[in-house]
Amino acid sequence: MVVSSQHIVNGRPADFDLKNYLDRCGRIVNMGLDRLLPPAKAKPRTLHESMRYSIFAGGKRLRPMLCLAAAEACGGNHEAALPLACAVECIHTYSLIHDDLPAMDDDDLRRGNPTNHKVYGEGIAILAGDALLTHAFELAAGCDAWPRYDHQAIVREIAVTAGSKQLIAGQVADLEGESCDLSRVELKYIHERKTSALLCCSVRLGGMSANCTPKQLKALTDFGYHVGLAFQVIDDILDVTQSTEQLGKTAGKDQSAAKATYPSIVGLEKSRTIARQLTGRAFKALEAFPKRRTAALNALAAYLLERDR
Amino acid sequence: MVVSSQHIVNGRPADFDLKNYLDRCGRIVNMGLDRLLPPAKAKPRTLHESMRYSIFAGGKRLRPMLCLAAAEACGGNHEAALPLACAVECIHTYSLIHDDLPAMDDDDLRRGNPTNHKVYGEGIAILAGDALLTHAFELAAGCDAWPRYDHQAIVREIAVTAGSKQLIAGQVADLEGESCDLSRVELKYIHERKTSALLCCSVRLGGMSANCTPKQLKALTDFGYHVGLAFQVIDDILDVTQSTEQLGKTAGKDQSAAKATYPSIVGLEKSRTIARQLTGRAFKALEAFPKRRTAALNALAAYLLERDR
Repeated sequence: MVVSSQHIVNGRPADFDLKNYLDRCGRIVNMGLDRLLPPAKAKPRTLHESMRYSIFAGGKRLRPMLCLAAAEACGGNHEAALPLACAVECIHTYSLIHDDLPAMDDDDLRRGNPTNHKVYGEGIAILAGDALLTHAFELAAGCDAWPRYDHQAIVREIAVTAGSKQLIAGQVADLEGESCDLSRVELKYIHERKTSALLCCSVRLGGMSANCTPKQLKALTDFGYHVGLAFQVIDDILDVTQSTEQLGKTAGKDQSAAKATYPSIVGLEKSRTIARQLTGRAFKALEAFPKRRTAALNALAAYLLERDR
Repeated sequence: MVVSSQHIVNGRPADFDLKNYLDRCGRIVNMGLDRLLPPAKAKPRTLHESMRYSIFAGGKRLRPMLCLAAAEACGGNHEAALPLACAVECIHTYSLIHDDLPAMDDDDLRRGNPTNHKVYGEGIAILAGDALLTHAFELAAGCDAWPRYDHQAIVREIAVTAGSKQLIAGQVADLEGESCDLSRVELKYIHERKTSALLCCSVRLGGMSANCTPKQLKALTDFGYHVGLAFQVIDDILDVTQSTEQLGKTAGKDQSAAKATYPSIVGLEKSRTIARQLTGRAFKALEAFPKRRTAALNALAAYLLERDR
């Protein structure tokens, strides 16, 4: 798949081979996760199998890839970014396992497969989530660090993002079903926390692993924030327009739960416009970097806008 | 309460006023937790109230006190140890909230009060646990550190202890109910992980906050390990001998769940002997420190052995 740039924005290299990039980085991330997670046969086996079941359940690895691509943008390398990329994927996977629980979204299907608690039972699913969250910090403590971005800065970055005012706050808002009568501003509050925060953290960690300048970190923050919001708007759109089979998770859930979404508040067409505008701002943020280094980030942002699942 | 030392071991100062120490350190820890946790009225309120509900539900603060007392033993001060003492209490409280869930031990009562999920519902209880676990790492990232025990070492200490091979492994073993036909060796495996690991981590973190020597860290590890095992043996004994009212949690649970415990495997008297022997080894480990600095650790270990709840 060679993503053509013309309908999105100028400046994205039309000849960037995204499919090749996704394959290559996907392999790097999968090998990293396999190496950096406890082996399935280590005691307690059920727990470690359950952790690996969800980690290797066909996730698209967007967050770790954004982390690696952000490291590239700052002149860094994949090797230094990999433990942080894997930490972010552990956080993401833990949040999915807990979100799918009967006491939360009560979902049986994730990426076309039975959810963790459907396979291992609720108790083990809760503990597997706990263990992945904890393991993310073990990985963060194990990475190489710079004086400017030491382990203190890296651990704080992850803890604040995954914490009670960001990622978990988004899930609480979702859980409390306050979403029914939300304004666009309130919906944005949820999207910022439930999705944008961790995407933003992913690119920031990539930058930190490459010892980026403060100016570069600001640009990555800007990029991650807008890509994250666009990602969630698209998610809302796909929930309406795609089938369960296409998504690999239950489609139409937002509608049947009478959840506020971008389409339900501003309509489908306006939602698409908003997603394009947000992605445009993300592209804009990348102008802080030499163009030759942002091909991957650029293509990933375009891919997230154009994806159909 | 002036704990007299004569029935336990020589060397513990008979005039150490433990009640005063528990009161004073309890206040320090409670004030620290109040200051270092997100305020109850910060958004999302339900979540932050739920976190605080369990944190301030009358816990004895043993782990944070052991952390402070270990800092004293190494010539350090309470101020430097406090964020780590609070981090350990966050980990402990998260593990209790998740352990009490219907999918786990299904307990309605904790310290004489309704468990978190009974008050806030299962969804919020799971998220409150997640948030406390995450917050522990934010606190660890926020503490002052030494070159020898930098944030990398401190975060790793907590992550490994709370992780899939220690704390969570203990809970998995408990959950899988493999305990029915356990040998004493297997029971010890669970106790080491479910209880001893975090007590050991508490004193180690106290030592680290005081920039202890490697020899002191080893002695604290030895102390924490044995105190932790003794603590759990006593817990097993109290489950048999005390009433629900006395314990503030459901008594006789182990027996009714046909769980293996020290009393069920070796009998009540032998269990008491084992607890005394383990505590004796803990006292022995303290000989690595100047006697004037270990009064608190000594008294705490004796108190844990003699407690009735």
